[in-house]
Amino acid sequence: MADEALLEKDVTDEDAADEAGRPDDRIDDERHDEDNILKPEFVNKVEDALEDGDSERAYELVEPLHPADVADLLELLDREERRQLAAAITDLMTSEVVAELNDFVRDDMMEALPAASVAQIAEQLETDDAVQLIEDLDEEDRQAILAELDDEDRIAIESALSYPEETAGRLMSREFVAVPEHLTVGGLIDFLREGRDLPNDFLEVFVVDEKHHPVGTCALSWILRTPRAIALADVMKRDQTLIPAMLDQEEVGNMFQKYALVSAAVIDESGRLVGQMTVDDVVHIIAEEAGEDALLMSGAGEGDINEPIRDAYSARVRWLVANLGTALVASGIIYLFGAAIEQLVALAVLMPIVASIGGNAGTQTMAVTVRAIAMNQLTRSNTRRILWREMRVALLNGVTIAVLIGLGTAAIFTPLLGGVIAAAMVVNVMVAGLAGVLVPVIFDRLDQDPAVASSVFVTMITDSMGFFAFLGLAVAVGVV
Amino acid sequence: MADEALLEKDVTDEDAADEAGRPDDRIDDERHDEDNILKPEFVNKVEDALEDGDSERAYELVEPLHPADVADLLELLDREERRQLAAAITDLMTSEVVAELNDFVRDDMMEALPAASVAQIAEQLETDDAVQLIEDLDEEDRQAILAELDDEDRIAIESALSYPEETAGRLMSREFVAVPEHLTVGGLIDFLREGRDLPNDFLEVFVVDEKHHPVGTCALSWILRTPRAIALADVMKRDQTLIPAMLDQEEVGNMFQKYALVSAAVIDESGRLVGQMTVDDVVHIIAEEAGEDALLMSGAGEGDINEPIRDAYSARVRWLVANLGTALVASGIIYLFGAAIEQLVALAVLMPIVASIGGNAGTQTMAVTVRAIAMNQLTRSNTRRILWREMRVALLNGVTIAVLIGLGTAAIFTPLLGGVIAAAMVVNVMVAGLAGVLVPVIFDRLDQDPAVASSVFVTMITDSMGFFAFLGLAVAVGVV
Repeated sequence: MADEALLEKDVTDEDAADEAGRPDDRIDDERHDEDNILKPEFVNKVEDALEDGDSERAYELVEPLHPADVADLLELLDREERRQLAAAITDLMTSEVVAELNDFVRDDMMEALPAASVAQIAEQLETDDAVQLIEDLDEEDRQAILAELDDEDRIAIESALSYPEETAGRLMSREFVAVPEHLTVGGLIDFLREGRDLPNDFLEVFVVDEKHHPVGTCALSWILRTPRAIALADVMKRDQTLIPAMLDQEEVGNMFQKYALVSAAVIDESGRLVGQMTVDDVVHIIAEEAGEDALLMSGAGEGDINEPIRDAYSARVRWLVANLGTALVASGIIYLFGAAIEQLVALAVLMPIVASIGGNAGTQTMAVTVRAIAMNQLTRSNTRRILWREMRVALLNGVTIAVLIGLGTAAIFTPLLGGVIAAAMVVNVMVAGLAGVLVPVIFDRLDQDPAVASSVFVTMITDSMGFFAFLGLAVAVGVV
Repeated sequence: MADEALLEKDVTDEDAADEAGRPDDRIDDERHDEDNILKPEFVNKVEDALEDGDSERAYELVEPLHPADVADLLELLDREERRQLAAAITDLMTSEVVAELNDFVRDDMMEALPAASVAQIAEQLETDDAVQLIEDLDEEDRQAILAELDDEDRIAIESALSYPEETAGRLMSREFVAVPEHLTVGGLIDFLREGRDLPNDFLEVFVVDEKHHPVGTCALSWILRTPRAIALADVMKRDQTLIPAMLDQEEVGNMFQKYALVSAAVIDESGRLVGQMTVDDVVHIIAEEAGEDALLMSGAGEGDINEPIRDAYSARVRWLVANLGTALVASGIIYLFGAAIEQLVALAVLMPIVASIGGNAGTQTMAVTVRAIAMNQLTRSNTRRILWREMRVALLNGVTIAVLIGLGTAAIFTPLLGGVIAAAMVVNVMVAGLAGVLVPVIFDRLDQDPAVASSVFVTMITDSMGFFAFLGLAVAVGVV
């Protein structure tokens, strides 16, 4: 890969370097804007070429792009254009492009290809990328593709598929460097230079005992900085973080973050080294896990703009139906106070305010809580302290808003109604704080993802309590 | 660091290895649960020791922990306990612990220490961590600490502070390995072995020309796999991703993800190599940027559970006040239809349903849009296609919910009212889809963070439109 890149870029780079003083800087060139996004003008040129059926021009436009940018370009096009472009640039559709494609776009493009072509692509990929390529296909398609692969690749992919989705075993790379403990640094370097079946890129060497259990790890920089005669056992770090193959990807991401890892050994149940996770793969997992909470809390499912419409519909409509249910509960409460509203229509005018602010306050607290749970910051050890903290914030917020809306209501309607709405506001914002912490914490204790359903419950509680506190208090103090 | 870890862990590790068959696996031991979280029983033991004033017992409990776990433990304790523990384990409070501490907890602990002590800690840290340590302090405290540092550290930190917050220049490490192009692989290895002022850990060697402009980069694995006589220029990759020092951290994270980088050269305006960003630092940035959207959309500011209460209050209350403003707009619309509500109280009972579902649908679309913008998936090239996609999803969702609520309302109240609420629902969910895409896109075009204020506008639009469509239609068709 290094050589390829070198040949390809040799001339153009040097020119660019002389001219701009910053060689091959990908930002702000004729194709990218200052945020490193492909310019619409460039995308339009490619679209025009495709529309004119001019494959050659499309090829020329795409050729200078980095594989990750080719993937971006495919994602920006619509379905029909994607297939046209893929057909026009077949030899630029490298394994790197396929590995960088959005899951939905990749699946869509793969479904359109015959099994033999997909198998050909899968063979070029590293195991972990090949698994991604076929894991979401139908069982039938998957078998057809596996049958086309050579034995070694098929066994590696089948082994990966035997682990549950989103676990280290499914995601790990099966290509890594493991060496016995008795080597010297010089012996290791000779082994690396001569070894034939070694991966091209690796960040760490794993040291194993005779049972293939990891006993230490050695950063490549230490190997390079140590005299050849020193024993590997004296350089390696014994204190390493091992990833059980069944560990969920979210926890893998947390461990990489917490211990600042660049790669880590994956072990099976008997403690044998079976693979490695490297940080470039984990980065995607961390971004996905951290970003999905906003989507899950809003009830938008996977929330990818490339998700097929029928999937987006079925993911979202179920939460809207759930929301319909909770809205009916709130309506039921209003219905109970129908007579009061008939007498004083101001109640109907004001009641959504209490519910709305409570909902917003609840969402704030819930977002903070969900994030803290995801980052392992909120644990059973400090739940009470955090609940107490949030209640104090809620009291401050509630009182502030209550004073504003209370004074306004007193001025426009009556002082009594101002007092009622102020009291209802404090109650509802406090309830929102309580629910915003407790609902996600309870879901987490029940081993449910706290981001998924918390929103529906918190909103139901704050809506119902908002209407009930306001209308109930109004009736109780005799406003009507 | 390697040696230290080795000496410290030598004995215990081997015991653990024999016993469990997986040496030093940090998961599910006596101190950690299966999610690698410190067990409450362990935390309680430490708290009990502190309460009893038994520093020695506290020290013994904490000593076996990884620095990242010591940081976690400090975060789990309350303020008073934190200071007691820090005092009890002074020599375990290494630079690694300080670097791993949550920003708020670290600032709080540092403010309590005299300038000389903070300077002592800062000196041990790498520049980027030292900058984090002092960047949020008062100007006065900062100067006092800088004055205590030796010249080299002070100049490095002042140079970092001269770049804006959250840019590559502020965050980069100033310790890296850069070598001239004419070296052979063997010459490079000799230089690395003999070089005195080199960092201990590095992932890549940068090759520079005589003007100190980067011309290529060399993964350590390639150096280790190449015969000594080969010229470095033939091994290195010329096609590298360079990070401008003024680039925002969000874009740095996107580049690391997109190009699967483990480290990258940072260049100043004249194209000179001035630092490097490594993936272990970028991982934190990616997680922070991806996770903060949920917090920003909810209006919870930084949303860290360790944020001081007064900061949490001022961040959140401003959005609640804004929400009060938008709720008043919605109330104003209800007020316009006060006479209709007085005649038919069913309108007051049903109207929050239309607003609530619209709000939820708008939040779903907004979350998807904000995420796609953050990941550079939604650009000027495909905005129209995505808007069209979202409108189709909205139509499907709107019709589904409209049928459900329409039939229910027809059964309980009148068929005419059922028709009114169904039509209002379709209108509001479509409006929600439109606003959910356009509001964040417009903020983005105006160079505002689309996550920050979108929520307030989308909710205002869906609330107002919900009440207006339902009550307006009811009056127009003569329900009342």
